[in-house]
Amino acid sequence: MIAKTPEPPYYAVIFTSVLKKTHEGYSEMADKMEELAKLQPGYLGFESARQKLGISISYWKDLESIRSWKQNTKHLLAQKSGRENWYEQYHIRITKVERDYHFKTI
Amino acid sequence: MIAKTPEPPYYAVIFTSVLKKTHEGYSEMADKMEELAKLQPGYLGFESARQKLGISISYWKDLESIRSWKQNTKHLLAQKSGRENWYEQYHIRITKVERDYHFKTI
Repeated sequence: MIAKTPEPPYYAVIFTSVLKKTHEGYSEMADKMEELAKLQPGYLGFESARQKLGISISYWKDLESIRSWKQNTKHLLAQKSGRENWYEQYHIRITKVERDYHFKTI
Repeated sequence: MIAKTPEPPYYAVIFTSVLKKTHEGYSEMADKMEELAKLQPGYLGFESARQKLGISISYWKDLESIRSWKQNTKHLLAQKSGRENWYEQYHIRITKVERDYHFKTI
């Protein structure tokens, strides 16, 4: 669901990807990495959706938290598997959230 | 597909949303707005995916382009319809893309 994030500024990592036709083991690893990310210092939230294109957004307190998560040993192994086995292509964008707005019906 | 954006810095508007159970006319309007956004000054690209959660990301040259698109007359009407008829909730995050990386298999 929509992540409950604090007042800006904070950071968002936008990960857009296209999977290979066969990608056995991908979903299990994605779930594992989502669980592991939640335990990292500075983690603020996560959102994802996939049709042909997959979009995953993770929210972080600062750039240092993003750097640490990128270098996490289990995450490094998952990244390697991703490049070798699962992703046809991906794009990662490191962004700073400057403003946000929320709308909700009663 | 994955948007082909220029070298950072540029801006990304992250729009995450949950639709009401009935949302007649939503898809047609979403398509129209995507086509209209492409014609705006400063537009750089668009990515979207929807499962339970919908994520749409539009990329822009600068904050002024985002402001102009937000105030576009047809877009204002679509936003009104969205709040009244289609969205249970949404969250908009204005972000500055500071760095990006691309991976592609041969």
